[in-house]
Amino acid sequence: MRITSSDLGAVLGAIHQQEPLVQCLTNVVVSNFTANALLAVGASAAMADLPGEAGDFATIASGVLVNLGTPYKEQREGMVEAVASASQHGTPWVLDPVAVGGLKVRTAMVPALLDAQPTIIRGNASEIAFCAGGGAGGRGVDATVGVDEVVELATRFAADQGCVVAVSGPVDFIVAPDGRSAHIANGSPLLTKVTGGGCALGAILAACAGVADDPFVAAVAGTALWGVAADKAAARAQQPGSFAVAHIDELANLTPDSLAAGVNLS
Amino acid sequence: MRITSSDLGAVLGAIHQQEPLVQCLTNVVVSNFTANALLAVGASAAMADLPGEAGDFATIASGVLVNLGTPYKEQREGMVEAVASASQHGTPWVLDPVAVGGLKVRTAMVPALLDAQPTIIRGNASEIAFCAGGGAGGRGVDATVGVDEVVELATRFAADQGCVVAVSGPVDFIVAPDGRSAHIANGSPLLTKVTGGGCALGAILAACAGVADDPFVAAVAGTALWGVAADKAAARAQQPGSFAVAHIDELANLTPDSLAAGVNLS
Amino acid sequence: MRITSSDLGAVLGAIHQQEPLVQCLTNVVVSNFTANALLAVGASAAMADLPGEAGDFATIASGVLVNLGTPYKEQREGMVEAVASASQHGTPWVLDPVAVGGLKVRTAMVPALLDAQPTIIRGNASEIAFCAGGGAGGRGVDATVGVDEVVELATRFAADQGCVVAVSGPVDFIVAPDGRSAHIANGSPLLTKVTGGGCALGAILAACAGVADDPFVAAVAGTALWGVAADKAAARAQQPGSFAVAHIDELANLTPDSLAAGVNLS
Repeated sequence: MRITSSDLGAVLGAIHQQEPLVQCLTNVVVSNFTANALLAVGASAAMADLPGEAGDFATIASGVLVNLGTPYKEQREGMVEAVASASQHGTPWVLDPVAVGGLKVRTAMVPALLDAQPTIIRGNASEIAFCAGGGAGGRGVDATVGVDEVVELATRFAADQGCVVAVSGPVDFIVAPDGRSAHIANGSPLLTKVTGGGCALGAILAACAGVADDPFVAAVAGTALWGVAADKAAARAQQPGSFAVAHIDELANLTPDSLAAGVNLS
Repeated sequence: MRITSSDLGAVLGAIHQQEPLVQCLTNVVVSNFTANALLAVGASAAMADLPGEAGDFATIASGVLVNLGTPYKEQREGMVEAVASASQHGTPWVLDPVAVGGLKVRTAMVPALLDAQPTIIRGNASEIAFCAGGGAGGRGVDATVGVDEVVELATRFAADQGCVVAVSGPVDFIVAPDGRSAHIANGSPLLTKVTGGGCALGAILAACAGVADDPFVAAVAGTALWGVAADKAAARAQQPGSFAVAHIDELANLTPDSLAAGVNLS
Repeated sequence: MRITSSDLGAVLGAIHQQEPLVQCLTNVVVSNFTANALLAVGASAAMADLPGEAGDFATIASGVLVNLGTPYKEQREGMVEAVASASQHGTPWVLDPVAVGGLKVRTAMVPALLDAQPTIIRGNASEIAFCAGGGAGGRGVDATVGVDEVVELATRFAADQGCVVAVSGPVDFIVAPDGRSAHIANGSPLLTKVTGGGCALGAILAACAGVADDPFVAAVAGTALWGVAADKAAARAQQPGSFAVAHIDELANLTPDSLAAGVNLS
């Protein structure tokens, strides 16, 4: 049965009702924006990434985000703790393999993180291609290949790895281990002019996975709500400073109905 | 003699005149917002939290904030240095025990920090209850008990500990070691939709303590100016992105007179 | 031949065309604002500061920023790697010696960083005076001497050190090793009410140095575009929260022509 726009709205409704607590082990550049995005959408945020705390927190969190943007040593240790604990306790978790391929320290973490069975992997096409074994990674945080070029690779990777794979780009592609897939054609080029859009989206996916039974529906819903809010923000703010503010506002304005009405799902 | 609204305005006037330099050892999520809040209100900010620097800086700072939001190892060492130096040199300092109780690393720091005699302790009801020995802590950064439930406990804790205790919530409660107390009924539910509101308030209290002789008056004034600016921001911005921007603007707009006129003190 | 306003516009045009990738090893307080400023102006940003990654990244970056605002141990090691690699591969790099003089850990790094031959050194008058051996440093991040007081010292320092020196203040002063100099009288007092203005400017200078052959022209152009965008922002936003948003917007609005028309160069 194909996923529908009202399935996506239902995930947002569940966030509003359950206020999932999302534990973020993320980079210092985007932690503020990420927390504000989570709060705007109706979730709760905690940046609990210390070794000695991260594992315990993953037992009470609704979802966990592991983002490799600035993986300092203590946070790397916290990540190992958090994903072990999340796996053991059944807490869904999202891997965002920022800039893997080109940079050694974070790239060295990928095999162990994949072994710990992320629920969802979200990245740009270059990052996904690298994780799937089919690419060299990007240029810093920028993708050097297009989403279309990795559809097959991502589909095979989702099946092999047994997790949902979400490839972000002008049109996003999300694929489940069982082969279900969806494209989301929402969002604005302005998203590439504000730092942390992809990173915050990873946290939103963790919030969605914390309330939805099906991680594929969660990943599509999170991608959709991020893009629909961006559409609405871009309609009233054409420059990146005011767009970022409007994007947070529109995340807060979004309802299950306005999400279902605004999504461009195929 | 009861505290009056013009006492509170006078503290803001002193900040405008003296431009207190506030040293913040705070979490990475809110450091930008905290610095901007301090600048908006007329103070100066420095995030000097390195071991080898933090102690020296506490001798020239007007006030110090120690916030346990993301206490990495180096910062923990910096905190130990800073509070020892602040205590020795008479620099007032504020403890913000973010998420203590539930998380081991920061919780382990509490006894030593209390021994170093904070001037003001600011937290939500769960955090204050834990510090006072009467609660288990909250759920991440969220309180799980109400302000009213900890009034007695906070009052006893202030007396025993010999410091001002400021409990943040829909109506804030501030109590001095000598039993003087005040409620501030300003602020907006939007404050809970922007990350770092409580954390930045802790820094504002440190600025106030840097210019006011009486830490109780400082804590009430800081709480009041934060809430009155939030009231004014909420009157013109109903969504969290634009509210956060408006809140900074309104902190900058605030005068001793508009603070005194706007505060809801009891 | 004197630098002209159209030389400055040409640098912005080159950024728009080449989209230089700027590697930032900067402080946690301003990393988000810095990345957004770089994106707004048309550059790309990567906060690659880990030891084991920073040196490799400096070989592919167009320019590197080393900012001493919160130099934690791992980042200090990353800085040593990055500047060695930048020097070896001819990648231009900018040193921003935040708060040196007063604070021991960062001050101890200055000699080695100067030995590694920064392309541009940017700071306030106190920081530049300290680096040049003629001052005690400032009060936290605040200058305690004026730009005019360090013109001679900065000029001699540029010649001795063989790098461009950019002194930020109400009127900025930029000087080349060969004695060429310029003043930029743009910008707004509101810049001192938003944290990270100087820090982000350092990153903008690295972007300019990544596209311009002459580091002096790069430094003047970067200083000019920062100030002209601030002028335009201050014309429509008089409070710091909305000014910061408008400043990012105006960086994105700026064209080579509007930069050349708006700059107050002498």
